[in-house]
Amino acid sequence: MIAKTPETPYYAVIFTTLRTDVDKGYLEMAEKMETLAKEQPGYLGIESARNDVGITVSYWRDLESIKTWKHQIDHAKARDLGRELWYAQYQLRICKVERDYGFNK
Amino acid sequence: MIAKTPETPYYAVIFTTLRTDVDKGYLEMAEKMETLAKEQPGYLGIESARNDVGITVSYWRDLESIKTWKHQIDHAKARDLGRELWYAQYQLRICKVERDYGFNK
Repeated sequence: MIAKTPETPYYAVIFTTLRTDVDKGYLEMAEKMETLAKEQPGYLGIESARNDVGITVSYWRDLESIKTWKHQIDHAKARDLGRELWYAQYQLRICKVERDYGFNK
Repeated sequence: MIAKTPETPYYAVIFTTLRTDVDKGYLEMAEKMETLAKEQPGYLGIESARNDVGITVSYWRDLESIKTWKHQIDHAKARDLGRELWYAQYQLRICKVERDYGFNK
């Protein structure tokens, strides 16, 4: 789904990943983290797709919300496992969304 | 591939889409636009994935580069066709990338 975000400005975290061939526990953890993210203060929405590369964009009210989510303990543990097992490479980008435009047929 | 972007700050355009069931001309145009984007001044890289939702993130040096690309004539024509034929819904977000972090096994 396309996230229903409020008026700008708000924040986006673009998480682009290349996976290893280790699948054990990955899907369960990805779902668990998405559920957990939705419970965090300042969470606005998420969009995700994967082919060769995976892109997950989560949207947040402000930098403080992103920082709180970064330090959430289960999320920190998942991140350690991610580096150990599931991700060969990733890039995480923290962005201020300055403008947006929608189209709906 | 994960885009190799320079030190922050730079800009990202997050283009999230839901497709119609019209495929005619879509893939050719998507490839043509990606090739054309790469020739634009200030272009830094692109990442793309699609499942139910499609996410394409293009990276740019500054807002001026994004504006020039927005008004590029073949791109403007492709956008009109996109709204007419290929996209049921989309959201385009213009973002300033303030910080980024990489991991590479």
